Amino acid sequence: MTTGPIAGSHKQYIDADGLRVPQRRIELTNGDHLDVYDTSGPYTDPTADIDVERGLPPVRDSWHRPEPVAAGPETGPTRLASTQLSWARAGIITDEMRFVAAREGFDPEVVREEVAAGRAVIPANHRHPESEPMIIGKRFAVKVNANIGNSAVRSDISEEVEKMVWATRWGADTIMDLSTGKEIHLTREWIMRNSPVPVGTVPIYQALEKVNGDPTKLTWELYRDTVIEQAEQGVDYMTVHAGVLLRYVPLTARRVTGIVSRGGSIMAAWCLAHHEESFLYTHFGELCEIFAQYDITFSLGDGLRPGSIADANDEAQFSELRTLGELTSIAKSYGVQVMIEGPGHVPMHKIVENVRLEEELCEEAPFYTLGPLATDIAPAYDHITSAIGAAMIAQAGTAMLCYVTPKEHLGLPNRDDVKVGVITYKIAAHAADLAKAHPRAQERDNALSQARFEFRWTDQFNLALDPDTAREYHDETLPAEPAKTAHFCSMCGPKFCSMRISADVRTYAEENNLVTAEDIDRKIAEEMAAKSAEFADQGNRVYLPLEATATH
Amino acid sequence: MTTGPIAGSHKQYIDADGLRVPQRRIELTNGDHLDVYDTSGPYTDPTADIDVERGLPPVRDSWHRPEPVAAGPETGPTRLASTQLSWARAGIITDEMRFVAAREGFDPEVVREEVAAGRAVIPANHRHPESEPMIIGKRFAVKVNANIGNSAVRSDISEEVEKMVWATRWGADTIMDLSTGKEIHLTREWIMRNSPVPVGTVPIYQALEKVNGDPTKLTWELYRDTVIEQAEQGVDYMTVHAGVLLRYVPLTARRVTGIVSRGGSIMAAWCLAHHEESFLYTHFGELCEIFAQYDITFSLGDGLRPGSIADANDEAQFSELRTLGELTSIAKSYGVQVMIEGPGHVPMHKIVENVRLEEELCEEAPFYTLGPLATDIAPAYDHITSAIGAAMIAQAGTAMLCYVTPKEHLGLPNRDDVKVGVITYKIAAHAADLAKAHPRAQERDNALSQARFEFRWTDQFNLALDPDTAREYHDETLPAEPAKTAHFCSMCGPKFCSMRISADVRTYAEENNLVTAEDIDRKIAEEMAAKSAEFADQGNRVYLPLEATATH
Repeated sequence: MTTGPIAGSHKQYIDADGLRVPQRRIELTNGDHLDVYDTSGPYTDPTADIDVERGLPPVRDSWHRPEPVAAGPETGPTRLASTQLSWARAGIITDEMRFVAAREGFDPEVVREEVAAGRAVIPANHRHPESEPMIIGKRFAVKVNANIGNSAVRSDISEEVEKMVWATRWGADTIMDLSTGKEIHLTREWIMRNSPVPVGTVPIYQALEKVNGDPTKLTWELYRDTVIEQAEQGVDYMTVHAGVLLRYVPLTARRVTGIVSRGGSIMAAWCLAHHEESFLYTHFGELCEIFAQYDITFSLGDGLRPGSIADANDEAQFSELRTLGELTSIAKSYGVQVMIEGPGHVPMHKIVENVRLEEELCEEAPFYTLGPLATDIAPAYDHITSAIGAAMIAQAGTAMLCYVTPKEHLGLPNRDDVKVGVITYKIAAHAADLAKAHPRAQERDNALSQARFEFRWTDQFNLALDPDTAREYHDETLPAEPAKTAHFCSMCGPKFCSMRISADVRTYAEENNLVTAEDIDRKIAEEMAAKSAEFADQGNRVYLPLEATATH
Repeated sequence: MTTGPIAGSHKQYIDADGLRVPQRRIELTNGDHLDVYDTSGPYTDPTADIDVERGLPPVRDSWHRPEPVAAGPETGPTRLASTQLSWARAGIITDEMRFVAAREGFDPEVVREEVAAGRAVIPANHRHPESEPMIIGKRFAVKVNANIGNSAVRSDISEEVEKMVWATRWGADTIMDLSTGKEIHLTREWIMRNSPVPVGTVPIYQALEKVNGDPTKLTWELYRDTVIEQAEQGVDYMTVHAGVLLRYVPLTARRVTGIVSRGGSIMAAWCLAHHEESFLYTHFGELCEIFAQYDITFSLGDGLRPGSIADANDEAQFSELRTLGELTSIAKSYGVQVMIEGPGHVPMHKIVENVRLEEELCEEAPFYTLGPLATDIAPAYDHITSAIGAAMIAQAGTAMLCYVTPKEHLGLPNRDDVKVGVITYKIAAHAADLAKAHPRAQERDNALSQARFEFRWTDQFNLALDPDTAREYHDETLPAEPAKTAHFCSMCGPKFCSMRISADVRTYAEENNLVTAEDIDRKIAEEMAAKSAEFADQGNRVYLPLEATATH
């Protein structure tokens, strides 16, 4: 298991009225520091006693759990629920809400309001006390999910647990266990007991294993029992493809890539074979009752999402979305939290429409998208094709992004692929946070840019999303240790030169109170001669930029 | 030197009224083929006789060159020019225009109109007859530039020529030689004589070398002579930072990252030291005369572009842009083609403003941007941070994107970095082509998606921007040759299963003329029972998607 802090940082806990909220403190060489959001759990804390056999300590067991309340304002005392949604609607600020508020730098009341409105969810099954709660909603930092899971082809349990630890180390906010092979229950148990982040699943996968892969043999009862089995283990959110209705299936007939969602195709096969409406749809109320009992969050699956640019935003996709909107309303009447899954493959000019429609049809429930890939022509680079779409869809209001690795469409991701996928998606999420003006987002950009401009190489590495690779790339050209403190970069050679003009210019402007072009026009005639002499005294050094490889 | 075709394709020439226009033909296993734009020159043609010592054949020498015409409509017969812009304005369709029209699938008259309006440029120095002309303008496919060039620190001439060949192999539409070390003239000579794509330079770099790196020693005469030296060699476009005016320099004082453009900082240093206006600005007309003589295209440099998210869209940047607008108008009055360089580092919500302002101030001259990076926090992944910004700015109308490699800010790119940078930028450019509905863009997405859906693995690889890496990633999980023809993917295991439901559904919908949800509602009651039986006969197989690693 990978443990120990990320280079240049250490775990720091802040006290939020008795709750211990983790942060990662990046120490800077100029004596300053920057605290950043930390998804890595106890694994990066050298003082933590990690024992995979025992699992993480169940921290949330000692937190206060309020009494059940009315599921929603309209349901009254006949339907009670113990969910973040119901408590939020009842005006109760839970420990989970206080925890996520401290984590993100918001007032707990803002968190409660967003959860009460259904615009944010806190996926936290009562039976997953090992998790450090997090919030998914467009007002908060954009989150990233990483998929793991064994399959019939390869990988074992310890490998999956390590993948979970590895993905959260680099910033995965949730993980989904998509195991489809042998030992699904046991693999999940190990992951649940060791995961510091919420875990999502797609119960239909395990249900299908129970009927040896024949979807027509699926029944509501079998599915329900599988959901309860997973609920008992503590799964925090579940993908349910309840919007794949019988009448939508033929809408996929003229598509270039038909149905590409596994869950969607399973349910389509069932509907066609039985010429009946999906049991996920007809039994949705019963499912809500189960979810409410554990506070499992719905991730309403987009089983008919487009699998290619050609199929984006078509009638099949948007018909299902309308149904997901109906289901959202039903789930919330049971006090159950809901998020909505989205595509997939969408060209840039059709991305925003997805968000607007989701918000309109699904009461602004948090949107959770896979990419989308902005083009189909670059297998082996689909983390990049999809990061473009992901950044844009997150800017438009998507709350969580499901990562894509370089192996998408081609093979199973290895450890390096998982890391590249997570880092790529942290980039997309952070770019969106900047664009949405999340109160804490730009701090890190500014800190890194300042370090860059001041040639504090070590700080530049440590402030990066991936300090190890940044340092490695630098050292390929200039491996010696002095290169990390000297004021030059590999592109310009070892001359002390960089900040001269800018520092010079800065001093000049401050001394002369020059802010606008008009100020400058006024002053320039009288002052520039003196300045020129001063500049010449300092050696007339040219300012050499950091971007020389790409700069002209 | 890397030669030979890209996997699964071969060079194909189309005849455009006697001009031989290259394309790359991708052969498909279903007997079909797809022709795509080809930037690679003779290097991928096995019948070509490549001799780096001799250089490429000067194909354009045999093309028709029209007589000089009035530089522009307002200048009259007193100022003559032999440039694509002047000819276009005079209503003349040149061979270069016909060549690019055939290359992109446009009518030559459309090309002439766009060039005449200054909305597109064809960088083609009369002294670079080895080049295959290409067009840069928002109505055409978005182009990608790759920077190469030796430096004081490393790399030799043959390495630079190979980098050029390598970059164009993977799709670079132009290259810039940013050499700053020894043998600048000779390196450029080798690159020019062997480059099938237009070559850009930043003459101030070589001028600075001539004064041993002291910018205050620069003079107009020295700079002019350097420009003529490079013009004679055939440089197709030159970056000129003529918009860095004395009065703008103090506007950078309060920035987080000051001036990050090398050319910009050189000119800022000169202006401050001499307390004089930039000689590039005061002698701009003379420069235009030289450029007009060779038909060199201006790439008006953004010397004050932001070097960090914090500095984006500030007064320094936009003041310079206004000056570039004035210079654009002057250059065009000499018949000189112009494009405008843009940032750099810009958060997503500030990207579109850059394009709108550039178009407004610079008469819609083609915009040519570096990225922009949408966040500063991911050194070692800046090809990705910048591809996000690049795709968005191209969607908004940027005509050419300057690539960024994973080594940006950290070190010198190697061969692998150059390839990753080019492929990443081809993704951004193509995503924008899709979003702008370029007439040929979606063909390739559809062909690849169809191959994917039909499990034509080899076609999927060969249609990819990088067939080699796509195949390699596939083979990591399933190396055997049958896996490339069998109907399954590495995620789902070897069951013949994939297209069953979708093909089935397709047949059903076609037979019953079911297109809308209403059609389906009407038919579903009467037809579904029969359908169900038919489906059961076929084995009730579940449709297993290709996206299982990331799909739920």
